[in-house]
Amino acid sequence: MAEETGVAIGAHPSFPDLMGFGRRDMRVTPEEIRNYIIYQVGALQVFTKAKRLQHVKPHGALYNMGAGDEELARAVAEGIREVDPNLILVGLAGSAWIKVGQEMGLRVASEVFADRALTPDGILVPRSHTGAVIHDPEEVAARSLRMVTEGKAIAINGEEINIRGDTICLHGDTPRAADLARTLKERLEAAGIAVVPMGTFL
Amino acid sequence: MAEETGVAIGAHPSFPDLMGFGRRDMRVTPEEIRNYIIYQVGALQVFTKAKRLQHVKPHGALYNMGAGDEELARAVAEGIREVDPNLILVGLAGSAWIKVGQEMGLRVASEVFADRALTPDGILVPRSHTGAVIHDPEEVAARSLRMVTEGKAIAINGEEINIRGDTICLHGDTPRAADLARTLKERLEAAGIAVVPMGTFL
Amino acid sequence: MAEETGVAIGAHPSFPDLMGFGRRDMRVTPEEIRNYIIYQVGALQVFTKAKRLQHVKPHGALYNMGAGDEELARAVAEGIREVDPNLILVGLAGSAWIKVGQEMGLRVASEVFADRALTPDGILVPRSHTGAVIHDPEEVAARSLRMVTEGKAIAINGEEINIRGDTICLHGDTPRAADLARTLKERLEAAGIAVVPMGTFL
Amino acid sequence: MAEETGVAIGAHPSFPDLMGFGRRDMRVTPEEIRNYIIYQVGALQVFTKAKRLQHVKPHGALYNMGAGDEELARAVAEGIREVDPNLILVGLAGSAWIKVGQEMGLRVASEVFADRALTPDGILVPRSHTGAVIHDPEEVAARSLRMVTEGKAIAINGEEINIRGDTICLHGDTPRAADLARTLKERLEAAGIAVVPMGTFL
Repeated sequence: MAEETGVAIGAHPSFPDLMGFGRRDMRVTPEEIRNYIIYQVGALQVFTKAKRLQHVKPHGALYNMGAGDEELARAVAEGIREVDPNLILVGLAGSAWIKVGQEMGLRVASEVFADRALTPDGILVPRSHTGAVIHDPEEVAARSLRMVTEGKAIAINGEEINIRGDTICLHGDTPRAADLARTLKERLEAAGIAVVPMGTFL
Repeated sequence: MAEETGVAIGAHPSFPDLMGFGRRDMRVTPEEIRNYIIYQVGALQVFTKAKRLQHVKPHGALYNMGAGDEELARAVAEGIREVDPNLILVGLAGSAWIKVGQEMGLRVASEVFADRALTPDGILVPRSHTGAVIHDPEEVAARSLRMVTEGKAIAINGEEINIRGDTICLHGDTPRAADLARTLKERLEAAGIAVVPMGTFL
Repeated sequence: MAEETGVAIGAHPSFPDLMGFGRRDMRVTPEEIRNYIIYQVGALQVFTKAKRLQHVKPHGALYNMGAGDEELARAVAEGIREVDPNLILVGLAGSAWIKVGQEMGLRVASEVFADRALTPDGILVPRSHTGAVIHDPEEVAARSLRMVTEGKAIAINGEEINIRGDTICLHGDTPRAADLARTLKERLEAAGIAVVPMGTFL
Repeated sequence: MAEETGVAIGAHPSFPDLMGFGRRDMRVTPEEIRNYIIYQVGALQVFTKAKRLQHVKPHGALYNMGAGDEELARAVAEGIREVDPNLILVGLAGSAWIKVGQEMGLRVASEVFADRALTPDGILVPRSHTGAVIHDPEEVAARSLRMVTEGKAIAINGEEINIRGDTICLHGDTPRAADLARTLKERLEAAGIAVVPMGTFL
């Protein structure tokens, strides 16, 4: 972490699908994905010697596929461990990423999504469904706060589910993302939750 | 076709997976794959103005996935038609490639594999199974001849199946591929079958 | 040209330097650059079947190097001719591009730059020099008009030089480029010069 | 160095010119080349954690251009130092690589070429000249031995010049390269020169 700014750096590796921005499913072997992770994270790490990498969050289709595929998640986690066993693996709360990371002795961060509706199983409602994205900043903030402090959320069917978040994802290309981030930070801090790099508490 | 050599040129487009040599499944949209086909085939075609492209055979994972996926096969075929509606689409005998190509009014070539065992459904026995690859040159030649002349083959379970081939695939990286090609050509010609570019009879 | 819109499409091929956006000098052989041109222009052309490509303007470092290197310019022009001998080659007014294109019997378009100062030799004053870029829209318009109608311009040292333009370059990433384009078009039309696709008069 | 095999690993970074195999001159800024070196060497280093990288030898056009261009050589050396200040920089004997590396306090290895004729200035005679490549294995071995032990060689004009080598380059794609390597090793060892990883004596 950079002491002066209060932010830390993470890598965001993906399938080698430049044309598709890493957003398309690819069927690769565990050996292949492990090497891609080592290559991508390692190549970034060398540029950040002074302010070391804090975490790795798989990107796009890799993130989604690994959430439900332990073999894939394990191969990625092995790649991360090979680069630096101290790196934090960031994965969807309640998913294979968290289970596998913990089994392997890695530090893990459970990620929740501030503005996305959840199924009763704690999975993101696909964007193609009505109500998948939550637009009201106050509702986004209230949900986020509850996932962080109580480890609870209301699923799209009205049911209360358990889901605890160490880190909250806000996409930078969401319209008015900066406003949303500001509101969210204010609400969290008002409730006594400090927003700090995950490496300081995991 | 080049009159002087008796050979013709085809394109062999694939998923944009350079690292994986196009051999890995990717989930792309019909729009994406159609554009990849136009791009890849078009960029090759412009180098072959004098001796025009005769056919297009999808490569690797694209070939395998499209054999059982009509939507994918159709998008590829649309790309081919966009480049030149006179191009021949080469696909696995009995597969979605042939069905879709015919529906769209393209010229199609049914491809059979000289040295691969078949399931009773006319599908290639996966390489991981015992007996998937046929090594004896004489048996390879005999099977090929029968698929071309009678449209029949013996499946791996001993059952006789219908499978007619317009073109026979021999991988250049099979050990002793040149010998096999020579034997095959001799047996076909001995049986009165001329080996000629597919554009001359389709 | 698309009749309904009054615009035409051109290709803008470059050295194969994706990381450097084609803006860095590379020393390639004539054979190599010819093939790159065929590949890049051909791959684009196939997407524009209905509204055919009108012209080819080399990009970045290739444009600059070829302006003073007849061998390089000739190799590029050969590539263009291979794709379609009817394509217009766009090059810097007075440069090797124009000389070589004419010698080879291609249609050529002399390009002038609306907002750039000129040396007494008719070459662009490098951007690193004071006064290299002309910011006043009215001056830009007046200079452009004179290059198009009289084939004259005032060089940076005050000398009058001969430089005739068939086409005027305006970079889309210049601040207020759209305003500049509008002013320029108005001034040209007020002087009786129609702004039309170059293929209609070359 | 791997104790069990007696060999060590080096990186061989180049201009980002995949199509040209790094063999073509490119004009890049010092900032750009420094970053390319960090990226390429860093991405390799992370795969070699257990048996650390020993040295870095610039490849192709980068090697040749840097031999006579101190600014370029310095930017590359800065990139190497950023990755690991303990890495050995391998460069042409007597060139800017050696001068710059020494000034910057890096460990350097002077490279000589076993089978290439030299100008009186100690520069390789270009391959296009008659006599540029020395084919006789015994002569290759004798020249190499003398450059290593006495720091002398006979230039193509018969003049004796000073040129000392820490490491000898033998291209793996030279016909009969393995035989040449064997002969060379035998002659060196017969003269009491051990062939060992450069990291053990630099």
